[in-house]
Amino acid sequence: MKNLKIGRLEHGFRNSITDVPGVTVGHCTVDTEYHKTGVTVVMPCQDDMFKNKLVAACHVLNGFGKTAGLMQIQELGTLETPIALTNTLNVGLVHDAMVEHMALQAERNGYSIRSVNPVVCECNDASLNDIRNRAVTQKEVFRAIESASPAFLEGDVGAGKGMTCHGLKGGIGSSSRVIEIGGEKFTVGVLVLTNHGSTSDLVIEGEKVGEQIDRALHCDAPDKGSCIMILATDLPVTDRQLGRIIRRMSVGLARLGSYIGHGSGEVMVGFSTANRVPDDGAMMNYRCIHENQINAAFRAAAEATEEAVVRSMLAAQTVRSWDGTVRRSLKEFWNPQA
Amino acid sequence: MKNLKIGRLEHGFRNSITDVPGVTVGHCTVDTEYHKTGVTVVMPCQDDMFKNKLVAACHVLNGFGKTAGLMQIQELGTLETPIALTNTLNVGLVHDAMVEHMALQAERNGYSIRSVNPVVCECNDASLNDIRNRAVTQKEVFRAIESASPAFLEGDVGAGKGMTCHGLKGGIGSSSRVIEIGGEKFTVGVLVLTNHGSTSDLVIEGEKVGEQIDRALHCDAPDKGSCIMILATDLPVTDRQLGRIIRRMSVGLARLGSYIGHGSGEVMVGFSTANRVPDDGAMMNYRCIHENQINAAFRAAAEATEEAVVRSMLAAQTVRSWDGTVRRSLKEFWNPQA
Amino acid sequence: MKNLKIGRLEHGFRNSITDVPGVTVGHCTVDTEYHKTGVTVVMPCQDDMFKNKLVAACHVLNGFGKTAGLMQIQELGTLETPIALTNTLNVGLVHDAMVEHMALQAERNGYSIRSVNPVVCECNDASLNDIRNRAVTQKEVFRAIESASPAFLEGDVGAGKGMTCHGLKGGIGSSSRVIEIGGEKFTVGVLVLTNHGSTSDLVIEGEKVGEQIDRALHCDAPDKGSCIMILATDLPVTDRQLGRIIRRMSVGLARLGSYIGHGSGEVMVGFSTANRVPDDGAMMNYRCIHENQINAAFRAAAEATEEAVVRSMLAAQTVRSWDGTVRRSLKEFWNPQA
Amino acid sequence: MKNLKIGRLEHGFRNSITDVPGVTVGHCTVDTEYHKTGVTVVMPCQDDMFKNKLVAACHVLNGFGKTAGLMQIQELGTLETPIALTNTLNVGLVHDAMVEHMALQAERNGYSIRSVNPVVCECNDASLNDIRNRAVTQKEVFRAIESASPAFLEGDVGAGKGMTCHGLKGGIGSSSRVIEIGGEKFTVGVLVLTNHGSTSDLVIEGEKVGEQIDRALHCDAPDKGSCIMILATDLPVTDRQLGRIIRRMSVGLARLGSYIGHGSGEVMVGFSTANRVPDDGAMMNYRCIHENQINAAFRAAAEATEEAVVRSMLAAQTVRSWDGTVRRSLKEFWNPQA
Repeated sequence: MKNLKIGRLEHGFRNSITDVPGVTVGHCTVDTEYHKTGVTVVMPCQDDMFKNKLVAACHVLNGFGKTAGLMQIQELGTLETPIALTNTLNVGLVHDAMVEHMALQAERNGYSIRSVNPVVCECNDASLNDIRNRAVTQKEVFRAIESASPAFLEGDVGAGKGMTCHGLKGGIGSSSRVIEIGGEKFTVGVLVLTNHGSTSDLVIEGEKVGEQIDRALHCDAPDKGSCIMILATDLPVTDRQLGRIIRRMSVGLARLGSYIGHGSGEVMVGFSTANRVPDDGAMMNYRCIHENQINAAFRAAAEATEEAVVRSMLAAQTVRSWDGTVRRSLKEFWNPQA
Repeated sequence: MKNLKIGRLEHGFRNSITDVPGVTVGHCTVDTEYHKTGVTVVMPCQDDMFKNKLVAACHVLNGFGKTAGLMQIQELGTLETPIALTNTLNVGLVHDAMVEHMALQAERNGYSIRSVNPVVCECNDASLNDIRNRAVTQKEVFRAIESASPAFLEGDVGAGKGMTCHGLKGGIGSSSRVIEIGGEKFTVGVLVLTNHGSTSDLVIEGEKVGEQIDRALHCDAPDKGSCIMILATDLPVTDRQLGRIIRRMSVGLARLGSYIGHGSGEVMVGFSTANRVPDDGAMMNYRCIHENQINAAFRAAAEATEEAVVRSMLAAQTVRSWDGTVRRSLKEFWNPQA
Repeated sequence: MKNLKIGRLEHGFRNSITDVPGVTVGHCTVDTEYHKTGVTVVMPCQDDMFKNKLVAACHVLNGFGKTAGLMQIQELGTLETPIALTNTLNVGLVHDAMVEHMALQAERNGYSIRSVNPVVCECNDASLNDIRNRAVTQKEVFRAIESASPAFLEGDVGAGKGMTCHGLKGGIGSSSRVIEIGGEKFTVGVLVLTNHGSTSDLVIEGEKVGEQIDRALHCDAPDKGSCIMILATDLPVTDRQLGRIIRRMSVGLARLGSYIGHGSGEVMVGFSTANRVPDDGAMMNYRCIHENQINAAFRAAAEATEEAVVRSMLAAQTVRSWDGTVRRSLKEFWNPQA
Repeated sequence: MKNLKIGRLEHGFRNSITDVPGVTVGHCTVDTEYHKTGVTVVMPCQDDMFKNKLVAACHVLNGFGKTAGLMQIQELGTLETPIALTNTLNVGLVHDAMVEHMALQAERNGYSIRSVNPVVCECNDASLNDIRNRAVTQKEVFRAIESASPAFLEGDVGAGKGMTCHGLKGGIGSSSRVIEIGGEKFTVGVLVLTNHGSTSDLVIEGEKVGEQIDRALHCDAPDKGSCIMILATDLPVTDRQLGRIIRRMSVGLARLGSYIGHGSGEVMVGFSTANRVPDDGAMMNYRCIHENQINAAFRAAAEATEEAVVRSMLAAQTVRSWDGTVRRSLKEFWNPQA
């Protein structure tokens, strides 16, 4: 994917959400005869985030979905757990596993938890995965957390194993952008779980790639499914500013041809590592950008999302389900070097 | 509770959410040495609601909570599962149990489910319940569903077992009001799970009951915890109209002395049984009230919520936890007949 | 009004929104044969607020109204003009007058304005005022601004001249509360323009005052009209925190018996003088309270709003319109000293 | 503009918002030495819409703007006046003129108006227009209303006279799409007032037109300004469904290269002529599409908006302001036939 060049901003060292210092990502993939599914965990920091919460924001572009945990982010503007991504019917078990993870971590750190707000996002992989029998249990969630690292795979891994994007194989993708405000450099990183769009609508950098593929495959799918978009940044922002930034992630989807179909949960969650909110206190100080500087972050969010979606497709291998359904990889049809 | 008279509208036959035809409520209470908790399920209809969804709305008055399933109600204006209420850390397991319930019901009805949006609401009962060890599993959820009936207990039962309201024993309460629009009679029913408020703030029908109790008990609590408010009606309304109606439920809380404290998940969910949305189709017809008639429903929502909260407290018995914490019943201090 | 005592917090020196340092209020009343109307202006600070904006928030409890200027507050979390209150059909002319005021002030300060967001709130005084012929022009707005002072009248003055509250004479009311956070004292001040509620629903401090008056007057009105609620504070808060605080103003209305009727524009606007946002810059620092301290401000907002509404009615004189409609003063029927 | 072909759906007869039966558009342009501004009015129907309101919805994509009248649409889901578009500082006077227009119309129809909610949208034309001196008065608004017709000009006319889009001359553009649901044909029409975007970001149908123009002009502008998007349809929808449809209009902006900059009021307003809401009544019947059919309307909204923006630029002539500022027409640089 060296030559894919979307937008005009520079990307970070890894061109990944993990370019934001402290952020790691872990997967656990369930790849059996009947199951093509899994869980992916975005770890926003390496210390105890329940005791030092992160400024956060969320936005629902299309709410046909089952994501849990947004209500409290909306009210309090903070994130207190890692973000887990999985399949639609596994939200409950993954939610429970995240509660257990947070309780265990608290106990290791000498306190106990009586309330915690896990954030669990989902897309529906039922076309490749036997979703009825929930394959992601506490074991898989804990493995994903343990495996979290700055270097992680993209494509058909973790929660991305069974996803379908623009009728082709979707999954996990990531990208980043570096911006400069007030003489300082900051990173905006994006991770997406892609499961949306129809084949014929796919446009990459102005090229009507989807129409070409559709003519070859004769199997256009309706714009169904979802896209989960996670944004991390070390830019100091308030939760309101962050909310404005993540709303620009939709621009990336639209440029690739999606019109944000009905059957989707298009959900954005963002966090900033620059201000931490301690568990208690009387007065606090926030550092944040002046609103007039925010356009750089808007552009970064739009560009990184667009690129992350393409990367999720280019990194994915063709996947075949037990009943013969096949989702082919974009790279069989289109290649950025070409 | 015969002589409690809040507001000016008539209540329904049972003075309960189940006065709305088709609505039933079931509990499963977990009452062991360490656990004072449970699950309560509101069943909005007796037929297959996944195939014939109900018009629904939700509103978050204060979002410090973990309720799951609101995002899709907000987007689509429909409810497709029963509503489950439980303790904070049990949301995940109850969510998974609701998925299983819906999948089994679908299979009994000859189809399979690949996506479903359970609505799971919660309050935090950690002061009486060992919340760390999730005591509500699939078994308890299924029992609650099986036990659902128009006649159900209020007070310290089901999800209400470990709840605390205005420093006293809270739990499940219900009430209803009958209104007339265009010559027809309709019912507005409310069920609440009460876990909010401080003792000294409690005011009932203008009487500063809480200050008196506080002087006796010397143990005022901060306004912490949550209140879940479910509204059912057979009034034909659009989801937007229903959203306006449920927002008036906050009036009931305020009149009892709550100022809607920070540490709360004050969440409203409402549904109407008057318009059903089939699984598929091209065009539909909605019947709905003219907006000019909506005040009757506003008043009903406010009154029934106020009364339901008081009933949750009057119906509850004093409960003692394993560590000696006691939540006393309001009826030890105050009685509507007096 | 010396003996009216609502809630448990102390009020400020004047028991007024102007207890928040820097805040002033001005009126211009139009009292002619056909017109009982006017304009009231809340000045949030004494320096150039376009160049140093105030942190602000707004909330719409019931949006049947014509208030202008909220969209930008919602997006940017700042207020850049005084807040004007007037009658429903005068929003346009008052909006234009506020543009002119800001343009003139800018020119006096050596710059020019090409964009500005006036906030103009309204209630409908058509039952006492010939609203069709807009009586509030630029002249009245400028007079109100010029007359702004920490000491101002309440009741049937300014925008309050023609308003009706709970079927009695409403208008302008104000109150304040002093809270302590982290060893520092802060003020929460409220100003309301009251034009809502039905007579028989009015309850003051638990006393069913409205039912008594209704029996005497035989003229209950439906719960129609609106209530505009302005909150000022010197508490350092983010716009999100301020949004949470102003949402508690609804508690004050509910405790007085309103169920927030359909035909109302119940609108809250709040600002904090503690953090100013300069016109330009790269990075900023906000000071704000820790969320765990916010309950004190919630209680203050609820209490001050409840008291401000009662004061708007107690301060108002009986007003008679050209067509013989009479709105009598609450003080003819009820008195806090009694 | 014959050969411009955006998207895959058919456009209506005029390829205009007025393809929706009953919709007309009128302009009044103020073109003097110092003023390049005006007002454009979208008339949703030809009968008395105050007495028979239209189902409506609005959405704020970026709220840095002064649009008035959205709050009531949000609450009640109806539109009761034409929609006026003008420059930023003229919102007040145009608002007042719309009140007068509605009052006069009511009097002609034998009733009087005591409350009405004009919808006035704006973009900032201060780079070409002496915005400080409000040039749009009641006279211009009345002329725009009187001139309303199914055939109307696009480009630098009416409110579009002084607007700048992607650094070139923007203004008024329109387009439509025809969709089929349940065997019936419906029209989705869009009208935009374009004043957003930077030159170098402009992409048309995948061609990086903006970069080419920027190399020629050496004058890239920041992504500032606004875009007002009005959608009309004869599709029977509820206000919630309409809200979902208009949110897809942002897709059109993104595909042309905008990332929805900070300094913008990106505002969508939509109405449906298929269900009318009478002034009074007890029960109503709505006809509406089944949600599963909504994707066709989503695609139509996205395509028509994208095309309307391009048309606003292609129809506009180069405009020069009194101080020498020039906004050149896109057609000097790019032509769809080429």
